[in-house]
Amino acid sequence: MVKKSILIVLLFAFFLSSAQQKRLRDHGIEIGVLNPGPLNAVTDVPGVRVGHTTLIKGDNVRTGVTAILPHSDNIFQKKVPAAIFLGNGFGKLAGYSQVKELGNLETPIVLTNTLGVATAVNAVVDYTLNLPHNEAVQSVNAVVGETNDGYLNDIRGRHLTEKDVLLAIENAEPGPVKEGNVGAGTGTVCFGFKGGIGTSSRVVPKEAGGYTVGVLAQTNFGGMLKIAGVDVGKQMGHYSDSFKYATDGSCMMVVLTNAPLNSRNLERLAKRAMLGLARTGGIASNGSGDYVIAVSTAEASRIPYVSEQLATSAPAMRNEAMTPLFLATIEATEEAILNSLFTAESMIGRKGHKIEALPKTEVLEMLREAGKIR
Amino acid sequence: MVKKSILIVLLFAFFLSSAQQKRLRDHGIEIGVLNPGPLNAVTDVPGVRVGHTTLIKGDNVRTGVTAILPHSDNIFQKKVPAAIFLGNGFGKLAGYSQVKELGNLETPIVLTNTLGVATAVNAVVDYTLNLPHNEAVQSVNAVVGETNDGYLNDIRGRHLTEKDVLLAIENAEPGPVKEGNVGAGTGTVCFGFKGGIGTSSRVVPKEAGGYTVGVLAQTNFGGMLKIAGVDVGKQMGHYSDSFKYATDGSCMMVVLTNAPLNSRNLERLAKRAMLGLARTGGIASNGSGDYVIAVSTAEASRIPYVSEQLATSAPAMRNEAMTPLFLATIEATEEAILNSLFTAESMIGRKGHKIEALPKTEVLEMLREAGKIR
Amino acid sequence: MVKKSILIVLLFAFFLSSAQQKRLRDHGIEIGVLNPGPLNAVTDVPGVRVGHTTLIKGDNVRTGVTAILPHSDNIFQKKVPAAIFLGNGFGKLAGYSQVKELGNLETPIVLTNTLGVATAVNAVVDYTLNLPHNEAVQSVNAVVGETNDGYLNDIRGRHLTEKDVLLAIENAEPGPVKEGNVGAGTGTVCFGFKGGIGTSSRVVPKEAGGYTVGVLAQTNFGGMLKIAGVDVGKQMGHYSDSFKYATDGSCMMVVLTNAPLNSRNLERLAKRAMLGLARTGGIASNGSGDYVIAVSTAEASRIPYVSEQLATSAPAMRNEAMTPLFLATIEATEEAILNSLFTAESMIGRKGHKIEALPKTEVLEMLREAGKIR
Amino acid sequence: MVKKSILIVLLFAFFLSSAQQKRLRDHGIEIGVLNPGPLNAVTDVPGVRVGHTTLIKGDNVRTGVTAILPHSDNIFQKKVPAAIFLGNGFGKLAGYSQVKELGNLETPIVLTNTLGVATAVNAVVDYTLNLPHNEAVQSVNAVVGETNDGYLNDIRGRHLTEKDVLLAIENAEPGPVKEGNVGAGTGTVCFGFKGGIGTSSRVVPKEAGGYTVGVLAQTNFGGMLKIAGVDVGKQMGHYSDSFKYATDGSCMMVVLTNAPLNSRNLERLAKRAMLGLARTGGIASNGSGDYVIAVSTAEASRIPYVSEQLATSAPAMRNEAMTPLFLATIEATEEAILNSLFTAESMIGRKGHKIEALPKTEVLEMLREAGKIR
Repeated sequence: MVKKSILIVLLFAFFLSSAQQKRLRDHGIEIGVLNPGPLNAVTDVPGVRVGHTTLIKGDNVRTGVTAILPHSDNIFQKKVPAAIFLGNGFGKLAGYSQVKELGNLETPIVLTNTLGVATAVNAVVDYTLNLPHNEAVQSVNAVVGETNDGYLNDIRGRHLTEKDVLLAIENAEPGPVKEGNVGAGTGTVCFGFKGGIGTSSRVVPKEAGGYTVGVLAQTNFGGMLKIAGVDVGKQMGHYSDSFKYATDGSCMMVVLTNAPLNSRNLERLAKRAMLGLARTGGIASNGSGDYVIAVSTAEASRIPYVSEQLATSAPAMRNEAMTPLFLATIEATEEAILNSLFTAESMIGRKGHKIEALPKTEVLEMLREAGKIR
Repeated sequence: MVKKSILIVLLFAFFLSSAQQKRLRDHGIEIGVLNPGPLNAVTDVPGVRVGHTTLIKGDNVRTGVTAILPHSDNIFQKKVPAAIFLGNGFGKLAGYSQVKELGNLETPIVLTNTLGVATAVNAVVDYTLNLPHNEAVQSVNAVVGETNDGYLNDIRGRHLTEKDVLLAIENAEPGPVKEGNVGAGTGTVCFGFKGGIGTSSRVVPKEAGGYTVGVLAQTNFGGMLKIAGVDVGKQMGHYSDSFKYATDGSCMMVVLTNAPLNSRNLERLAKRAMLGLARTGGIASNGSGDYVIAVSTAEASRIPYVSEQLATSAPAMRNEAMTPLFLATIEATEEAILNSLFTAESMIGRKGHKIEALPKTEVLEMLREAGKIR
Repeated sequence: MVKKSILIVLLFAFFLSSAQQKRLRDHGIEIGVLNPGPLNAVTDVPGVRVGHTTLIKGDNVRTGVTAILPHSDNIFQKKVPAAIFLGNGFGKLAGYSQVKELGNLETPIVLTNTLGVATAVNAVVDYTLNLPHNEAVQSVNAVVGETNDGYLNDIRGRHLTEKDVLLAIENAEPGPVKEGNVGAGTGTVCFGFKGGIGTSSRVVPKEAGGYTVGVLAQTNFGGMLKIAGVDVGKQMGHYSDSFKYATDGSCMMVVLTNAPLNSRNLERLAKRAMLGLARTGGIASNGSGDYVIAVSTAEASRIPYVSEQLATSAPAMRNEAMTPLFLATIEATEEAILNSLFTAESMIGRKGHKIEALPKTEVLEMLREAGKIR
Repeated sequence: MVKKSILIVLLFAFFLSSAQQKRLRDHGIEIGVLNPGPLNAVTDVPGVRVGHTTLIKGDNVRTGVTAILPHSDNIFQKKVPAAIFLGNGFGKLAGYSQVKELGNLETPIVLTNTLGVATAVNAVVDYTLNLPHNEAVQSVNAVVGETNDGYLNDIRGRHLTEKDVLLAIENAEPGPVKEGNVGAGTGTVCFGFKGGIGTSSRVVPKEAGGYTVGVLAQTNFGGMLKIAGVDVGKQMGHYSDSFKYATDGSCMMVVLTNAPLNSRNLERLAKRAMLGLARTGGIASNGSGDYVIAVSTAEASRIPYVSEQLATSAPAMRNEAMTPLFLATIEATEEAILNSLFTAESMIGRKGHKIEALPKTEVLEMLREAGKIR
């Protein structure tokens, strides 16, 4: 069974890389005023790696895993400053309280489906216990987020295995990030269209430190879609249900930066991702689990698991230097979400449910009319 | 001195009411998909009253007070469910911890300038101690918010008096709300243009309860102005400084609704106002004190100061019914902020500092080109 | 393997029930001023059931599961108001953010060891998905807490299975609660002595409502033990390491009451359990995961999963009526922790590690000298 | 009026210094296992200064101010890392949200009565605006705490003036700290006995860094008094009302340390002061405003108001090194509270209300019987 799924994953990966995933910016649309990094992806943050496992099997399995690794060393031994903001805590995120208390992250960040969180935690624990140097470790705080792909995916069937999760971690790599119907975004739905994984980045000006902020989003939420400020959802009348009884949904946002930040300012940074979500028309409905995980990858900020020292000195941005990073987070989050919509493709899944991809031709016409395309 | 200021206030009030304050919607621009109430103001929420004291004196006093009263009874004796969300807590808001702990509000909400908070608290305490039936009261939790009007106003001169504050409370009235350079918005600056007081409201559909959500904002913050999604600030290049070292600023948002909400769901509602701010291009910069105070005015939800009962039963919206109210809050906040910009007028103040009003002709042209004007 | 473990569990259960577990109060020692309920156990709260699975296998498996059910109906369909307080969030508790956001609990509460949380979550999800009426459920927020029993237990071996967890839920029953080396307390260590599961209850006076507050604790933490205020740890010099580099530990406290409380006041109640822990000499060391889960079992407060209504009216205690419940929580927590120490027995586990039971003879002598024994 | 009050203050100060205020430890009673600093006072933390203004006038004025300064420089220009924990937020503490957001303190900490907070804020703002180098400052976050002395003091008369507050700040000095009926503790009531100001300190072992933790408490709360674990309140039957409808009260705790701590670990430290309060029998009743303000005075941790740098490196204790500081905070808080009771004297105030001092003879006898006196 596993073998078959691996095969499918590989085929799918090939298909994806060969397909032309035109992203928002490829259509001549710019978000915000800051410049993206070279890849316009979370992997523009040096050392960051992303891996996906995509599970598409038969008529009803449409799910997956996405893993984000802040650096290539043993994360447990070299923890990174981190914070999590609860945009709307209707979700099953694992690992919140320890990150809040200790201000750090000690595992890869894994995203998956709602009922797969525990399996992913077990996999992350396995992964961590089995790393060299972790032989005596007895306590692991796995950070695993989720959104509910139960419309397209047979979520109650719980098809995700620990191996799928380990595969995503092991396959994580730098460079361009697959977007759309991939990994944890395989079966998600966003603003009534096919959602998925999206990513983007921003580089703050040199006088603000020249740091990079990268965002990866797993988009599965509702509201009234806005693209570059244009009321696409409203114009299409594509919102009738979105302000009534949205039951599930969710958006996981992962923000990484090489700016040296302590956990307090990372929490403030995380808070800004919700402002980026708002710009896409997101409303954080009651049933939406909107979480932001923010991490500093700055090498000087790493926190050794074991140390002889009682106190350590790590650089940290002053409060007064945060604003450009806030703006970068907002812009990158907005664009990451929109990239997920532009790259995702129509999908048929469980019970024949079909979710259409964003109708790009129609949407681009609206954007052109609004003067949004250069 | 006081007399003179009262005279000025009266003259100013007359001037304002006679002037034509065209609001956003008067230009044919609509925000969102829900309908506003009849006044499109926070006073659409039944029983809510607003009062302003505007202090414009000589070359350098440009400040004031705005008071919002959730109902016409003794608020201390009939407290209202309330919550405060710290969008970005760089500010001097009084009253936070008790509202958080007890889930209620027992005084009018007062907005003023940063260094006037304590004077306003003293006034609110005076007001409360001296109300009939409060003869034995020895503890009052005044809720007072602020933004920093120190660019146009001689804030260090601390010209605000307790009488000014009491006047705003006493003059509070239902009906249309003065906006722009009035009350606590007299000397504020928003997106580099003249800010002020703005208000808006939304009514949720009947099947969602038919409740009204009203928002009043004191706008004094930065970012890249967006109007109805159009990148006005970016097009005008009006943002060069806004993402560098914003030192002060702030946005106070007050959300009132006649929906019966407990404090937990009021805090969730308050959180959504930040999403409305985001849609205007706000970025919650480091130096911005962005606070949202949310209150339910539902009569059945009032909390008697004294009661024979150990437990009481008050209606409260189910979590599942919150989404329409969230959307209403987002839309009303966005429009309240924009109304403050459309109604505020250019002002010269301290040291000859001048802040221009939003250049409406130019801006409306941009909106027209983007297809935003019906 | 499973069968063998079930056998062991049954034998152990028999052994426990036949043994004489003398609790603190059986020695004539009283804690506080309020009266306990008839069982002096969390099960004094009407409808509450507790189940244990104890895993003692070979030389190195010393762990288990304890499940607490707030009522006998389908908890997912009839959720209960709930809150969680992070006393010290160094732990892996599952379910925090959704309880915080929505103010309710929808599953049994399960306690186990640190690396068993995910397995327990999977079991709770299984349990919930498979209950009658839950056929369409796609999202379950399992609340699972833990402490680290890795000194006596081969925690890295991860011997806990989903079946062990389901067994604890299924076997949950009202009536007397097994304490000491049982369930999730099988392998725990407290103040350097053998810890375990402990429970206690208090009934508030009739004029305060006559409600019952019950506490169950899984004790695995350090500090300077105090029993009924007597500095037992200090007198025995039994603390040398406790204020240096405590690495793990933890105390899970579960508070249930039939008082009708909303989630805000439940969070306040939960906070008080930490004051009870403090009275036993607990210091919430850096490595201690101290969590309090508080739940109201009041029938009128239950929250139906599905409802036609937008708003509901449930009784809730006034803030002013909370103090007696706070006191009850403090006293019951103190006594629950002490009961765990009095009922636990010496144990040998992993690598031959041995933890002695509290030396009762010596300790009772100290208490007698301090006038603490009636 | 002011002159007269100054005279009274001076006379009172003289009286106090000549009187013999026997503290807990002077009776041979030790709390905990760590050693106090030389003064057993908050002023053992290098650089910390404390000043009191005591207002005792006529029959009904029994109030005052206590100011705590973390260092002798301009605090606004050299801010200190800080955090505030809301033990029970029924209180009017000013300054919470900015400390939470920015992680620092920029003014002296002032304690006074509930209705005097705003006057004290105005005084602290005055003080700060008028310091050399602060000529351009337009925003000041004054941190002012309070408890309600309205039983003995005519609190509604609001007798406190800004001058009284400024005097406390200006008179702040290192060295021994006056305790009991002094400053902000002049009119307070604790466990039904006369409360007041109390202080204590602890020094952690050299291998834990050798740092000092000092606590100053303003005690005005209820519960069942315990002294060194002995149930004094219970034995005296002195609690009948304390668990019913406590309406006001409160305990302000200020924790200072020269350990270099970031704001996250300061918040954790602050949380532990509540465990110290619990050991004295405090229950954090509904009406009790229990707040802990924690500050690091470490010189290397100071935060310059203005800096050329985007990021700075300051030393900060590792999470793993916090436990001894937690223990120090707990012990010093417990002893500070008890010192306030041992040093306060019986007082008659408003309406002839009389509060007796702790009956030391009787209490010491109980402690002797329990073996608590060396």
